[in-house]
Amino acid sequence: MYLAKIHITHKASILDPQGEAIKNALHRLDYQDVSNITAGKYFETTLTSDSKEQAEATTRSICESLLANQNMETFLFTVEKVED
Amino acid sequence: MYLAKIHITHKASILDPQGEAIKNALHRLDYQDVSNITAGKYFETTLTSDSKEQAEATTRSICESLLANQNMETFLFTVEKVED
Repeated sequence: MYLAKIHITHKASILDPQGEAIKNALHRLDYQDVSNITAGKYFETTLTSDSKEQAEATTRSICESLLANQNMETFLFTVEKVED
Repeated sequence: MYLAKIHITHKASILDPQGEAIKNALHRLDYQDVSNITAGKYFETTLTSDSKEQAEATTRSICESLLANQNMETFLFTVEKVED
């Protein structure tokens, strides 16, 4: 069994309205030392792939085909072997 | 300047409808080696705190007060010093 940890964040050039809204809310709550915040998605997926290479290939493919909006987002992931 | 990386995920006992929906969609797309997937949130925030302890205290507080729904979610974070 393999465990993939996937981080999906906005591309640097893309406006992050959710992050802006959260920052403004935090400033209204008087958290003045928060200077910037970016909001993204985090997924953990377990895979029954036969090899680490196959688990990595599947993870890359599910990011590209479903989890990440390739126009606006970038993704990073790690894959590690875990006990069944 | 400090950089906090925040992971917010569902408590184990809580149903994760988004994760279930994504898993079903992935199976329809023929990704049969995906056995489970959990969906969460990921934030990166820069802080102008005076110390690492203060940055950690602020990060814990913004998670508890705004970013995480304490009834359904848990949060983990790391704080590291970064160049201004």
